[in-house]
Amino acid sequence: MENFADRLIAAIETKGTPACVGIDPVYELIPAEITRCAKEPCAAGARAACVMAFHEEIIEIVAPHVPAVKPQVAFYEMMGAAGMAAYADALRRAAQKGLIVIGDVKRGDIGSTAQAYAAAHLGEIPPHVHDQLFVADAITVNPYLGSDGVKPFIEAARRSGRGIFVLVKTSNKSSGEFQDLVAGDSELFVKVAGKVNEWGTQPGLIGSRGYSCVGAVVGATYPEQAARLRKLMPAAYFLVPGYGAQGGSAKHVAPCFNPDGLGAIVNSARGIIYAWTRSPYKERFGEARWRDAVEAAVKDMVADLMRNEE
Amino acid sequence: MENFADRLIAAIETKGTPACVGIDPVYELIPAEITRCAKEPCAAGARAACVMAFHEEIIEIVAPHVPAVKPQVAFYEMMGAAGMAAYADALRRAAQKGLIVIGDVKRGDIGSTAQAYAAAHLGEIPPHVHDQLFVADAITVNPYLGSDGVKPFIEAARRSGRGIFVLVKTSNKSSGEFQDLVAGDSELFVKVAGKVNEWGTQPGLIGSRGYSCVGAVVGATYPEQAARLRKLMPAAYFLVPGYGAQGGSAKHVAPCFNPDGLGAIVNSARGIIYAWTRSPYKERFGEARWRDAVEAAVKDMVADLMRNEE
Repeated sequence: MENFADRLIAAIETKGTPACVGIDPVYELIPAEITRCAKEPCAAGARAACVMAFHEEIIEIVAPHVPAVKPQVAFYEMMGAAGMAAYADALRRAAQKGLIVIGDVKRGDIGSTAQAYAAAHLGEIPPHVHDQLFVADAITVNPYLGSDGVKPFIEAARRSGRGIFVLVKTSNKSSGEFQDLVAGDSELFVKVAGKVNEWGTQPGLIGSRGYSCVGAVVGATYPEQAARLRKLMPAAYFLVPGYGAQGGSAKHVAPCFNPDGLGAIVNSARGIIYAWTRSPYKERFGEARWRDAVEAAVKDMVADLMRNEE
Repeated sequence: MENFADRLIAAIETKGTPACVGIDPVYELIPAEITRCAKEPCAAGARAACVMAFHEEIIEIVAPHVPAVKPQVAFYEMMGAAGMAAYADALRRAAQKGLIVIGDVKRGDIGSTAQAYAAAHLGEIPPHVHDQLFVADAITVNPYLGSDGVKPFIEAARRSGRGIFVLVKTSNKSSGEFQDLVAGDSELFVKVAGKVNEWGTQPGLIGSRGYSCVGAVVGATYPEQAARLRKLMPAAYFLVPGYGAQGGSAKHVAPCFNPDGLGAIVNSARGIIYAWTRSPYKERFGEARWRDAVEAAVKDMVADLMRNEE
């Protein structure tokens, strides 16, 4: 069973970029050529069908350029059971394209319930079940409940060659409200980082490249904290949200990388998948050429992160 | 639009008990008379059908005795999209029986994603959509991301007459690992409680009985902390897990109530819905009379909590 971090690094090296495309399908933002077939007000099932048609195209466009995609389950959950079938479809299509698939589910609960979530998102897929399960290569996990809420995910990841990214310092404005509280000698997010390092360096979790299958979510919007966290969790891969539409730039994400040029995967969602609604792609392409806008935006992101390395 | 806390209190007073039954459907624990129709190894869809048959009976048995049920989505999520359709079915059946339905989903994310989760679980149900959405009367919410991760849920609750229970002090063994860290003058869970009180006492959130639609999860396994939290969040309804199978007794949950006898709803899941697998119901009923065991266990829980009041 290959270690998740090894698989992730191999994909990053094959594509030559640590860029990840977030798939956040908001029905109202999907190009009209896809949604106009559905009548308004549109039932959840019809919306889910439109979303599937959209993410199919997005995955097709970005797959040659990036190593990974990150579907956000919340936007699928809005559409009920039909939406969750669409989420399963996104995971499966991306995997078929050879992409590393990170399910952004931010789950977390106590022992037996955490085990159920781990089985749901990192479990074995029985040979006779081909789709509509939610198993991804890795998922995001919320640490608020402590070790016994996180360890079932780590055990599942170890068994299945998959990974987790634990929320450490999130990209949103109010992330500091609790995460930055100082307890004794350091902030809560530093304490969580210490646990992530402890959890992720247990035997059997570190791959051949020195990275663990237990990673961390570290927002691009807090570069100073990222620099400290990079040293506190040397073996953790960082999943870095907040690049692009949330305001983070290549400069902001630089502290998330180790001197080996590895250690972070940088996510952009709205800036890529709705590129035609934003400058400069809006002017260059418009909605009629939305596919070209998406491709140009993903290429620009790859180039931007590349300049950063030099 | 009636306030959620008012609706909850009315249901509690009608049934004469603050007992809530947790619906945690573990396929392997379901009575063989239900599962033997499904072939092994059993596909997710067939498992989901068994779970639906099981929760239908559980809801039927407990509905006359308790005001509320709490389906745990993790156990449904394990079965993929078919499982999520079963989760929607549990919510709908319980609502049809007049029960208050608390979706134990522990969601939490940044602004726009939190909005999507809020729409998924507390949103408006379009008139032409009748089932397979995940809308409950209230849900549990994880606070790690701070105010902008919680407020979209509060706004949705306000608009729809629904509620949330924010994780404050969870019932599991390692809950103290982060929640009990002391920052300045108090522990993290006390800081979270302060925010819950602030969030929940904004205009338009307090009902006619003085309670807010913003409640808190406070584990029965930490009665001393519960006593402190009761004073810090006087208007918050407590959802109290950890009674029964997790070790909490009526004595342990007593500090969760206010002097008015209100302020807490006490959940038991495994101790009720799998009662026939545990003493004394195992000996008295066995699996053949599992329905009688479930009914006896729920009646015993109601009586146990009643003694507490006296």
